[in-house]
Amino acid sequence: MTNASIITIGDELLIGQVIDTNSALIAQQMNNAGFVVTRRVAVGDDYEAIETALSEEKKHSDIILITGGLGPTADDITKPLLCKYFGGKMIVNDVVLENITAIFKAIKKQLTSRNIKQAEVPDVCTVLPNKIGTAPGMVFYETINKTEKVFISMPGVPQEMKGIMVDEVIPLLQAKYKTTKIEHRTLLCADVGESTLADILSDFEEKLPLTIKLAYLPNYSMVRLRLTEIDALKSNIGNYFIALQNIVKEYLVTTEDESMEQVLGKLLKVKGKTMCTAESCTGGYIAHLITSIAGSSSFYDGSVISYSYQAKEDLVHVNNITLIEKGAVSEDVVKEMAAGVLKNIHSDYAIAVSGIMGPDGGLPDKPVGTVWICVGSKNNLKAHKFRFRYDRELNIKLTATNALNMLRKFILDEED
Amino acid sequence: MTNASIITIGDELLIGQVIDTNSALIAQQMNNAGFVVTRRVAVGDDYEAIETALSEEKKHSDIILITGGLGPTADDITKPLLCKYFGGKMIVNDVVLENITAIFKAIKKQLTSRNIKQAEVPDVCTVLPNKIGTAPGMVFYETINKTEKVFISMPGVPQEMKGIMVDEVIPLLQAKYKTTKIEHRTLLCADVGESTLADILSDFEEKLPLTIKLAYLPNYSMVRLRLTEIDALKSNIGNYFIALQNIVKEYLVTTEDESMEQVLGKLLKVKGKTMCTAESCTGGYIAHLITSIAGSSSFYDGSVISYSYQAKEDLVHVNNITLIEKGAVSEDVVKEMAAGVLKNIHSDYAIAVSGIMGPDGGLPDKPVGTVWICVGSKNNLKAHKFRFRYDRELNIKLTATNALNMLRKFILDEED
Repeated sequence: MTNASIITIGDELLIGQVIDTNSALIAQQMNNAGFVVTRRVAVGDDYEAIETALSEEKKHSDIILITGGLGPTADDITKPLLCKYFGGKMIVNDVVLENITAIFKAIKKQLTSRNIKQAEVPDVCTVLPNKIGTAPGMVFYETINKTEKVFISMPGVPQEMKGIMVDEVIPLLQAKYKTTKIEHRTLLCADVGESTLADILSDFEEKLPLTIKLAYLPNYSMVRLRLTEIDALKSNIGNYFIALQNIVKEYLVTTEDESMEQVLGKLLKVKGKTMCTAESCTGGYIAHLITSIAGSSSFYDGSVISYSYQAKEDLVHVNNITLIEKGAVSEDVVKEMAAGVLKNIHSDYAIAVSGIMGPDGGLPDKPVGTVWICVGSKNNLKAHKFRFRYDRELNIKLTATNALNMLRKFILDEED
Repeated sequence: MTNASIITIGDELLIGQVIDTNSALIAQQMNNAGFVVTRRVAVGDDYEAIETALSEEKKHSDIILITGGLGPTADDITKPLLCKYFGGKMIVNDVVLENITAIFKAIKKQLTSRNIKQAEVPDVCTVLPNKIGTAPGMVFYETINKTEKVFISMPGVPQEMKGIMVDEVIPLLQAKYKTTKIEHRTLLCADVGESTLADILSDFEEKLPLTIKLAYLPNYSMVRLRLTEIDALKSNIGNYFIALQNIVKEYLVTTEDESMEQVLGKLLKVKGKTMCTAESCTGGYIAHLITSIAGSSSFYDGSVISYSYQAKEDLVHVNNITLIEKGAVSEDVVKEMAAGVLKNIHSDYAIAVSGIMGPDGGLPDKPVGTVWICVGSKNNLKAHKFRFRYDRELNIKLTATNALNMLRKFILDEED
């Protein structure tokens, strides 16, 4: 089994200013290609810390993937360091220079000496072309106790790194190493807590063979369950996955690794129906989730975000008297919002939400986290009250998930 | 200087199924409190890997913060492992049991044996209370070569972990260790690339004292510049920060560590003005960014997301002839969208966007990434065409940033 380590470099990772999405992206690519990532290490823009990480990770793994040093400036530290670490000297690489020249020609900008310096790479590395950026990938080899270790350095800009991973790194590694057979099966549950699921599944878990692991991934009032089988001679993950689906069937949203909005989108497409939204407290987040799906225009018509009272009246025709008597966060208002948006946008289904996301705006009878959600069609609207107990960001996300799930269940119930 | 390492545990981190936001959150808290995080390590739910990480990180750091093992199920591995590692045995902790009982009483659920088991902790640890969840924090000590090492384990649920960090861990560490003086100054630039900035700033960078570092953090067609000074006897970061602001003044958006939408929101509040949006291709993402700001209802009225042609006509009164003759992605349509939304929602300013985000939908004369953005007020609308070259997700984010920036500049230009 070939192990891999990921080293990400950047002070910003250690002060928490940015979230490390690169590691997840690399890990995903490696896993899909059949390589096991066993460690991820983040260190700052510091010679000693980077050297220590290189020396430690080569003890743990045969493949060491390095990313970070974002762009032309941070390269100043990583590239010379790798050059020194592997005992090379910096030389201009013609292929890299050609690529940089072409990029600057395309965007009609003059090359600066800083850009030309980017074409310098250690003479002990193999260059991996970067199709969309100026910084190339670099491969170094070192043999330790007769085992060859491969070190691959990539730029930190996510799109560039991803391109080099997919086009260059994965094919290179697959040609060089025997890959491990890693099988995942994932399903999504809603309307159930993790500890309830764990109780329901304790017998199932105990009977799992050693080659199969069950993982719980709670996420915004949903729980994803994942079965993983590593390097089994004869795979039987399929049967266990069917058994798992049966046990959790009353909470089951999907048996694919997809999001709630993707599930809802597929359902609408299959039925040839469309939907729209009227959002208050979620401020466009539900619409954003749906429209993040490529091709969502085939089932999503649009939304009205009525943040102010006035917008609620003007855009979705909520009755002024309802607003005053019941308040913006009430069953009557979300129902009027849903009816109003269905009248404005001629969709088959609507979601409407109104709530208090915090930190301010709570009332004695409507504390922060109180949300009314309405889903339905022209002739049938269903509303439900929720109470979330977190911060603004999480309350928005929980509201969105629950609203999408309510509409999903509403459509499924219509079938019965 | 007291160094800290963060160890995050979970298979999901190594297959890239989730992004590690916990590490960033811990690093932020530590940094703000004056502790230097030097390494972050992620390992899987594997005894040997976790033990190795503990043994290695205690060589690097005096403080080792451990998180992960999300919730009641994954605890099954981390807690007994820590118990064994520090030579203790598991006992029921009364305070923890009381807390679990109270939580289940509040949500009116029956305690299961699995929940009661959560009250067991190693007898060699000190318990840190968890106010919102069932899994407590745990502190272990080990003395190595006369230096005391502190290990703090926290649950992986982000809100619970954050609560324990803020309420317990930071005060504990601040009482125990001399903190390092870490000063950050951050500013945000737009309308400029990283390499152009690097050229403009090369003299400035060369003259920086050794105690001050300059970092470039490119982010969605903006670049954040950060000066960091660590443990200087006499701080002079303020003067360097003023010099930096002067050099980049034509691109400067803000001198605070805040987002483009926060800057725009503040500007509107100061002027006592409001805004609204009409979104097509961004599908609510601009509205979401704005409404993520607490208190945004004071300057944000609402939005219309006109995803379909029909919605563009019905909701923002775009002329059917304009749509047919010019196409949805055109200067005329975004101007009609802006005018239409200003008519529907009586705000002072509007943003309207229409574009092709990909992967499909590109046309010979309007390739994927083509976007028209219009900003302005009732009497003055300005439109501009952009061409982004990335994937759907990034194209949406770049469109949003540029739209917010265009309105910000429009409002500032009005002053002149």
